[in-house]
Amino acid sequence: MEGVIVGSSMNLLRDIPADLPRELFETLVSTPSLRIERIVSHGHVSSPDFWYDQDQNEWILIVQGHARLQFEDNTLELKSGDYVNMPAHKRHRVEWTTPDEPTVWLAIYYE
Amino acid sequence: MEGVIVGSSMNLLRDIPADLPRELFETLVSTPSLRIERIVSHGHVSSPDFWYDQDQNEWILIVQGHARLQFEDNTLELKSGDYVNMPAHKRHRVEWTTPDEPTVWLAIYYE
Repeated sequence: MEGVIVGSSMNLLRDIPADLPRELFETLVSTPSLRIERIVSHGHVSSPDFWYDQDQNEWILIVQGHARLQFEDNTLELKSGDYVNMPAHKRHRVEWTTPDEPTVWLAIYYE
Repeated sequence: MEGVIVGSSMNLLRDIPADLPRELFETLVSTPSLRIERIVSHGHVSSPDFWYDQDQNEWILIVQGHARLQFEDNTLELKSGDYVNMPAHKRHRVEWTTPDEPTVWLAIYYE
């Protein structure tokens, strides 16, 4: 099993590069039916007209920061502790992330 | 699919009862191979000599608070943002949680 770390802990808020030219995606756990990722954004947004349209369900949590997720029918403002569950093929894009600090997302992709 | 909430978000740090006689366990997402739970502890610990010994792997994150997880061979001190991945049947118990504030855990049980 990938990502097994016992006897020590890691921290989602550490090891964030000071300079982040692109969003940072890191896989923390991966199995055939599950992927847990840390995503770090710092003012990044999805490209205009780009929509995520995924085969897996996605559950996301804002661990730190501030973001706006756009859906076809509405927009969600998200801050620390907020979470959203999105079924597969629920089209969405990152409309905005705060430039003031890194926004740390925990994303769980599942079947 | 249980727990689908689109068009609104929920917050892991809200809706914590002021009085918490027992640990609070809430299922946020459940499928045959995955369960996402919020757990809230406030000074709670596992009973003496009680050990969790689970058939599923467990990935846990401390969203807020401070806790100590005991394993058979060591103990981990955990604060906000810390996460640990535990394979199935890795015996563990909650040795301590801070009495100063609620400790909010995100637990992902998976196959």
